[in-house]
Amino acid sequence: MKNEGYIEGRNAVMEAFRSGRVIDKLFVQKDARDGSMNSILREAKKRDVIIKYVEKTRLDEMSETGKHQGVIANAAAYEYSELEDIFALAEEKGEPPFVMILDEIEDPHNLGAIIRTANLAGAHGVIIPKNRAVGLTATVVKASAGALNYTPVVKVTNISKTIEELKERGLWFACAAMDGEVMYDQNLTGPIGLVIGNEGNGVSRLVREKCDFQTAIPMKGDIDSLNASVAAGVLAFEVVRQRMSKK
Amino acid sequence: MKNEGYIEGRNAVMEAFRSGRVIDKLFVQKDARDGSMNSILREAKKRDVIIKYVEKTRLDEMSETGKHQGVIANAAAYEYSELEDIFALAEEKGEPPFVMILDEIEDPHNLGAIIRTANLAGAHGVIIPKNRAVGLTATVVKASAGALNYTPVVKVTNISKTIEELKERGLWFACAAMDGEVMYDQNLTGPIGLVIGNEGNGVSRLVREKCDFQTAIPMKGDIDSLNASVAAGVLAFEVVRQRMSKK
Repeated sequence: MKNEGYIEGRNAVMEAFRSGRVIDKLFVQKDARDGSMNSILREAKKRDVIIKYVEKTRLDEMSETGKHQGVIANAAAYEYSELEDIFALAEEKGEPPFVMILDEIEDPHNLGAIIRTANLAGAHGVIIPKNRAVGLTATVVKASAGALNYTPVVKVTNISKTIEELKERGLWFACAAMDGEVMYDQNLTGPIGLVIGNEGNGVSRLVREKCDFQTAIPMKGDIDSLNASVAAGVLAFEVVRQRMSKK
Repeated sequence: MKNEGYIEGRNAVMEAFRSGRVIDKLFVQKDARDGSMNSILREAKKRDVIIKYVEKTRLDEMSETGKHQGVIANAAAYEYSELEDIFALAEEKGEPPFVMILDEIEDPHNLGAIIRTANLAGAHGVIIPKNRAVGLTATVVKASAGALNYTPVVKVTNISKTIEELKERGLWFACAAMDGEVMYDQNLTGPIGLVIGNEGNGVSRLVREKCDFQTAIPMKGDIDSLNASVAAGVLAFEVVRQRMSKK
């Protein structure tokens, strides 16, 4: 496990909260409950940070300094944006909104590559879930090749709920699904959210059911599926192609 | 540096040669020249293996056992195919040949993802250069997600020369180039070789000049370029789209 972006020890973690750094996850030793740890937990809950209670041995493994004092915070290497930033960017460009929604991407290289793709496909933002997914770690920032300076990344508590919200604002949702309709036969030119699933399991059932249509990349081979960032790229550029040919 | 697929020490390397394992590269200590090392170098040259003469400190860094005895071999984790295997597969499927040619891809995750893409885009094979590129290491095999069981990967000494050979057999060559013509406006339906460049530098000048046309993915963003495996995926599926719409 890489520990880029890890903050270890009670004072360091408390200081990170005070300075306003975005913490993706807090790893806390199961049996460590006393005054200063309770303060840390209070701050974490106030900020809606995911808290993982783990054995001391897990923290020992993660620790680089060997002095974690029962707590390690996984800090975001970049600041997150708000949904409004995505709409503002679309409006500024005079384009129908185009958002990529990543349902539990776990690999930081994939997340970085998809943000990079989002930028070059002219998407106005990327939405990731707070839980069970990788955040904006240093590896993601590097793999995004500078795209994070331009493309807003928004972290939401509940992908399904966010889809509902965005539907009310006029977006249609296309869910990447191997058993969907071939993408060339669908109309992807309007305000759209492209939903990409987890590396192993695809889009989760609940999220999938919220989508307006299921979109498939035609598969001509023998194996199961494309790499998640490649699939995202192929789908995103089908949106580009359709938008270009519509003009 | 990962050392999956590394074979260390003189006996182990000699044994690998004897057993017919494919060696991608041989790292040899600069000043180590004696009987058993000369035998190893002879075997390596006989098999046209790339030999890198390096300082002892470099080998010490690469070594996992600490007992490299002046030689470490980088073994292919998979067997390579021949050009004929590619043509045989195209003929078997009754399709015009579709080959992906990778000019010096360095990242094993990219190479694996591209072989995976090649399989699912219905390409009949992947061609990689012997020199200055990653070979079929264990990481590549894993990232290819099983595609190596179906899609032939051929290693050639000189990409430019191979392109000439394949042109004589009827293939056209499209070179991925940011300043090329937008891919939607080109005809990619015939027998085709898609040439993808190195992560940092794109396709090398010599290889580029051998190609029949320069093909660009339309770029709608702020940053420079897509991840190499994403770009390969977007281009490969443009071939798929055109071939499907032609039918």
